[in-house]
Amino acid sequence: MRTVDLITKKRDGGELSKAEIDALIAGYTEGSIPDYQMSAMAMAIFFKGMTPSERADLTMAMVHSGETIDLSGIAGVKVDKHSTGGVGDTTTLVLAPLVASIGVPVAKMSGRGLGHTGGTIDKLESVPGFHVEIDNDQFIDLVNRNGLAVIGQSDKLTPADKKLYGLRDVTGTVNSIPLIASSIMSKKIASGADAIVLDVKTGDGAFMKEMSEAEDLAACMVDIGNRVGRKTVAVLSDMSQPLGKAIGNALEVREAIDTLRGVGPEDLTSLCLELGSHMAVLAGVAQSKEDARSMLEQSISSGKALAKFRTFLEAQGGDVSVVDDPDKLPSAKYRFEAPAKQSGYVSSIAAESMGVAAMLLGAGRATKDSKIDLAVGIVLNKKVGERVEEGQSLATIHANTESVDEALAIIYEAIGISDRQVTPSPLIVGEVK
Amino acid sequence: MRTVDLITKKRDGGELSKAEIDALIAGYTEGSIPDYQMSAMAMAIFFKGMTPSERADLTMAMVHSGETIDLSGIAGVKVDKHSTGGVGDTTTLVLAPLVASIGVPVAKMSGRGLGHTGGTIDKLESVPGFHVEIDNDQFIDLVNRNGLAVIGQSDKLTPADKKLYGLRDVTGTVNSIPLIASSIMSKKIASGADAIVLDVKTGDGAFMKEMSEAEDLAACMVDIGNRVGRKTVAVLSDMSQPLGKAIGNALEVREAIDTLRGVGPEDLTSLCLELGSHMAVLAGVAQSKEDARSMLEQSISSGKALAKFRTFLEAQGGDVSVVDDPDKLPSAKYRFEAPAKQSGYVSSIAAESMGVAAMLLGAGRATKDSKIDLAVGIVLNKKVGERVEEGQSLATIHANTESVDEALAIIYEAIGISDRQVTPSPLIVGEVK
Repeated sequence: MRTVDLITKKRDGGELSKAEIDALIAGYTEGSIPDYQMSAMAMAIFFKGMTPSERADLTMAMVHSGETIDLSGIAGVKVDKHSTGGVGDTTTLVLAPLVASIGVPVAKMSGRGLGHTGGTIDKLESVPGFHVEIDNDQFIDLVNRNGLAVIGQSDKLTPADKKLYGLRDVTGTVNSIPLIASSIMSKKIASGADAIVLDVKTGDGAFMKEMSEAEDLAACMVDIGNRVGRKTVAVLSDMSQPLGKAIGNALEVREAIDTLRGVGPEDLTSLCLELGSHMAVLAGVAQSKEDARSMLEQSISSGKALAKFRTFLEAQGGDVSVVDDPDKLPSAKYRFEAPAKQSGYVSSIAAESMGVAAMLLGAGRATKDSKIDLAVGIVLNKKVGERVEEGQSLATIHANTESVDEALAIIYEAIGISDRQVTPSPLIVGEVK
Repeated sequence: MRTVDLITKKRDGGELSKAEIDALIAGYTEGSIPDYQMSAMAMAIFFKGMTPSERADLTMAMVHSGETIDLSGIAGVKVDKHSTGGVGDTTTLVLAPLVASIGVPVAKMSGRGLGHTGGTIDKLESVPGFHVEIDNDQFIDLVNRNGLAVIGQSDKLTPADKKLYGLRDVTGTVNSIPLIASSIMSKKIASGADAIVLDVKTGDGAFMKEMSEAEDLAACMVDIGNRVGRKTVAVLSDMSQPLGKAIGNALEVREAIDTLRGVGPEDLTSLCLELGSHMAVLAGVAQSKEDARSMLEQSISSGKALAKFRTFLEAQGGDVSVVDDPDKLPSAKYRFEAPAKQSGYVSSIAAESMGVAAMLLGAGRATKDSKIDLAVGIVLNKKVGERVEEGQSLATIHANTESVDEALAIIYEAIGISDRQVTPSPLIVGEVK
């Protein structure tokens, strides 16, 4: 089997067999297939797409390119959740303890990553003492004991995906739905998920800005999951404005605590209940989404969800007193307000720009080696549809520098104010299963 | 200027500027742009094509990637000819002395190459003593003195094209018309051509099997030539059956001698007169194609063309007695006939298959290191449209082995015989200028 023949086959719209895809990925992982053939293949896939069975075969070939995590020592159905990026996305911080509190085992492998703010582990590290320096046995033991633990991503999972992703990044082949879908799904499956809930964002602040693209990506991932024996559900949600109000690491932890206490932002709460209900059903701890939702709501109102968060933090060395006293979280030296220059209704908050402003303040990583400032970020005081009077603060900047002019300018540019009343777009815009 | 942005621009159908193409080719030649980005770019070009100015810019960027030959020491307009492959293609051997005999200066840079038979230099080396071991000054001096000389291809010309061609060969990006056209044109221009006549084949034995593709390629090359100041004409000719009757190195030299003497195969003679007329007009030695044709015909009938061939061979060490006594050319130990198994009319001679059969006998090179047998090959005794009786020989195999069963089987498979009379396709099927 010559690699050039596989490239030509795909280029001309043919379907690659499982054996061909396995050979391609195995050869690429071990280095016998060079980058220059793989990049030509990726560009051919960009133009010609992949059939459903090709996508499933590619996903599993990438899963088998490295180690896989064995979660069989944990009782129950292990349901993982994946969010496709977004701005101010605090869902993991809320969902993990929330669903664990009603009996869904959460064995979460998480990363740091690049972006407007840090990854889930960065955010959790705002809690003094919290760490993910546990080994696999401790991890499984903690999930069995407490229903919830978080561990760092192993760098031995899906090496083919890492190598291919790096190549796509410099060859103009990132934006291919089958390649994105198989990349995401391979990581979830290698991490041991039995079932998967996908939180696919759409709109300005999302990776997939167009609804139709987000739908295609969701359908593609759900199809892969179901073909390879992992029940998968995708929820499509609007990311035209940031989710919740906080954008920043410690600021989002504080927002997560509020949400687990039942006083969080309405949109964040609503999305977490929706995603959590699917997780509970897939895990078999609820019969229906309606049952699941009322279990989750009750867990919040009874304090069970917040208690689970405490147990989880404590088990991994965290100072649980932050839950009752969030001022103990890292806090920035300066606060600046962004007073509205006119009265009216907030008509838009460009999510992507707000993320860029938070990154400028130091909340995120531009490169792997950037240092993150856990304290800084932005808190929105108004969201789309709300009334604002001239001089009222639209957003608060939390900074460790006094030079915030650039961030402030971006924030003003990002927030639209209209004379007329505005109805915000619905949060949940679709579902694929 | 990031390479990934250039790839993305092309992928999305944008037009690359001259500065962008120059940077791409310069970076690729020196190695700062890696193969994996160039192969993704080539695949994007495969799908999105190139605009006329992109193709011209790419051609000139490849010309400037290495040395160029300065033919200004030769008086007159230097017209080069290029044939796009084919089977039994003896045009260069005939055309070079033919047009030189009426005053068109021919400074021919030629190669050995891979294929069913050798390149022009291999064929000429069938003449005992003939060699191309001359330096540039001798080459120019010979053209000025005799009107004709042949030299080996310098390996310092168009290094970008060589590198890119090697990459395309293993990444499924050979069959892109703008990439083929700029590759051919860059080599001709770097070799010092002032004007170019293209002999574009179409049909079974050609690189471009479909007429529409051959037309596109011809139009693309002519447009490039005219945009970069080299008058260019393309003649499209049928290669559904081999051109002439001989397929093999010494066999083709013998056929060239026959043709220069006026007793060569009709199709080969006719194509050489057509191409030669264009060359004479572009060189300014004839006012019109009609004038040119009668000058060429007269040169053949008067013996001037054959005399030029003698002078040329002698100047480069060749034994000119082969012209009067072609039996002095290398000759194969065995001859085998392929008698017709039925009477009828020859309806087809699959050119590609005949080439493969000649290669099996040892007439061509499969890899750069293969040794060529100059003596072997195939001579057709019947061409499409001719009547054949059962038992009459369709073709003669010239071999240095007695095991010719495989070649014979291919020949029988390649030649169709019909009960009904057959009109051969016209030889010259189009012209682009």
